[in-house]
Amino acid sequence: MSVDRGARADRLAAALEGSGTDGSPVDAYLVTDLTNVEYLTGFTGTNGACLVSRDHRVFLTDFRYAERAAAIEDWEVEIVSGQWLDGLASRLSGRVGFEDDHVTVRTASELDEAAEGAELIPDGGRVEKLRRVKDEAEIERIAAAAGMTDGLYRELLEFGLLGRTEREVDAFLTGRMRELGAEPSFPPIIASGPNGASPHAEPSDREIGRGELVTVDMGVKLDGYCSDCTRTFATGTESDLDSLSREIYEVTLRANEAGLAAVRAGASGSEVDEVARRIIRDAGYGDNFGHGLGHGVGIEIHEAPRLGPTSEDELLEGEVVTVEPGIYVSGKTGVRIEDLVVVGAEGPSRNLSSIPKRLTFV
Amino acid sequence: MSVDRGARADRLAAALEGSGTDGSPVDAYLVTDLTNVEYLTGFTGTNGACLVSRDHRVFLTDFRYAERAAAIEDWEVEIVSGQWLDGLASRLSGRVGFEDDHVTVRTASELDEAAEGAELIPDGGRVEKLRRVKDEAEIERIAAAAGMTDGLYRELLEFGLLGRTEREVDAFLTGRMRELGAEPSFPPIIASGPNGASPHAEPSDREIGRGELVTVDMGVKLDGYCSDCTRTFATGTESDLDSLSREIYEVTLRANEAGLAAVRAGASGSEVDEVARRIIRDAGYGDNFGHGLGHGVGIEIHEAPRLGPTSEDELLEGEVVTVEPGIYVSGKTGVRIEDLVVVGAEGPSRNLSSIPKRLTFV
Repeated sequence: MSVDRGARADRLAAALEGSGTDGSPVDAYLVTDLTNVEYLTGFTGTNGACLVSRDHRVFLTDFRYAERAAAIEDWEVEIVSGQWLDGLASRLSGRVGFEDDHVTVRTASELDEAAEGAELIPDGGRVEKLRRVKDEAEIERIAAAAGMTDGLYRELLEFGLLGRTEREVDAFLTGRMRELGAEPSFPPIIASGPNGASPHAEPSDREIGRGELVTVDMGVKLDGYCSDCTRTFATGTESDLDSLSREIYEVTLRANEAGLAAVRAGASGSEVDEVARRIIRDAGYGDNFGHGLGHGVGIEIHEAPRLGPTSEDELLEGEVVTVEPGIYVSGKTGVRIEDLVVVGAEGPSRNLSSIPKRLTFV
Repeated sequence: MSVDRGARADRLAAALEGSGTDGSPVDAYLVTDLTNVEYLTGFTGTNGACLVSRDHRVFLTDFRYAERAAAIEDWEVEIVSGQWLDGLASRLSGRVGFEDDHVTVRTASELDEAAEGAELIPDGGRVEKLRRVKDEAEIERIAAAAGMTDGLYRELLEFGLLGRTEREVDAFLTGRMRELGAEPSFPPIIASGPNGASPHAEPSDREIGRGELVTVDMGVKLDGYCSDCTRTFATGTESDLDSLSREIYEVTLRANEAGLAAVRAGASGSEVDEVARRIIRDAGYGDNFGHGLGHGVGIEIHEAPRLGPTSEDELLEGEVVTVEPGIYVSGKTGVRIEDLVVVGAEGPSRNLSSIPKRLTFV
């Protein structure tokens, strides 16, 4: 299914008459965040910006991307000599919304100087809001990325963990991603034994021993969209594993399943988080789960909405979010179990992570 | 050689009495750009900030990085519940410089609200200025990364190009980087035949044919520092290659060598650029070289100084910069040849790229 980017720009343009963050409509909107630019135009590169008004769409980039820009449909393309800012001055007039959550203080000041006669309105988040709910073409792409990730988990179980270093496992997974025409959606986490106590551990030269938990958190970016999945495996046989590791695995799994069941349109990010967190707290590990329960996934590995204790986001049908509780015991061990699901009216309409969650010994 | 990060923070603190961008000294300086944070503390992660005053150094991050933060020496560490901003309010007083070239308009506004009684001064670039000139430990690390990259070029010549797809070549290189304990410093560019006309082409499923130029631009990040090297190879034998390809290769090579010879402390980025650019222009390809000649390399793949037509940077002894002229002929072919050198008093003190530059047939 092809992506209808034109419809996205139409929705953005149509929303310009809605209130800006200062309460009044804007005449034009400047999109400079590169992920938002990609969402609207398909352009990938390090320098590009979009200016959208009711009847006009301009995309600006520099010489290096002239060939790539020529492939962008439905947008007037201007090749500027330096940064996108250089091509803008003469095009700005009236009230122009800009992404104050992405534009730096310095760039805003330069933009303000360049934009004589225009009024710049801090108005970030318009494109992110469009991006929250995925269309069918997007869900198809995220599902393909998740399916590839599941395949990599299966290959990993064949490859084995016991006796490998974390770095070897990382190299195997990352190399396979490239061979399959994808890239990591973030650097894989391979956290074994005590390293599992750090939610964001980096793969080390540590050799994975017997009777350890190994948390593997990975995803691919494929055709512009990310996946995200975490499984925690055990090495050796059941008798090798200590009781603490068994216990926190079981608690985390229950929290994962309860959190998943609570994901539905209309629920708030904090409600869903609390459903999972209560299980961990009641088991006595409340202080060992210090991050939020999940986040949206799309072009970016982390995007809106957020599932966490302080989230005010209300879940919408068609969002794609992670549910990833964890328990981390400093100096000893850790567990995280993460699924990627599509938000439906009565619960997840799809769970895109198909790798079994019963504790698997590798 | 170990990195003396304490000395870096000392230099930053000592400079606070120098003029801020508004002409007056600042009492404290807030570092929030994650690369600058890494330079000062060694911390790598997605949430961290440093507050530096003459007699105090505080590093702020969140729970996820508590274990990693505990390894940071010489800094008071505060674990905050959310973003770094949450831990700052009570710590700010007097004139506080901040990185206006990194901090967004929105965050600056939130910071301003939180920082009652403090005056926020746009004052970006202090750490980048420190980062320009590399110390011996840094040059050692960049040289190690460049050496690994050269090894990968040698492996690539064994692996072969003819008949491979660009993507296969990318997977081979990226997988080998991981196996060697490094990561790509940027996604490798493998641009064959007409794809070579795009300076930033992405690896495609195109099969590399006979009698083509293939531009390979890659580097690794190893032990926190990047390398960057480009070579353009030819496939088949000398008789397979068309005369345009031969000609632009020779012109680009001459431009590369002339540019290298012009790199010295005291030269400006625009002077060095012009030395190389004149050769390309005189050969009739001035319009086919649309990017700058080079850039600094360090923790980031692109950092100060910049070598280009509009650069006002004056080169300093101990900077590490690329020299990478290119000629791009739309729809046909392209060449880029890039070395990484250390700026010396009379010319490059070291060329860290050792792969031969005569046209090599693979």
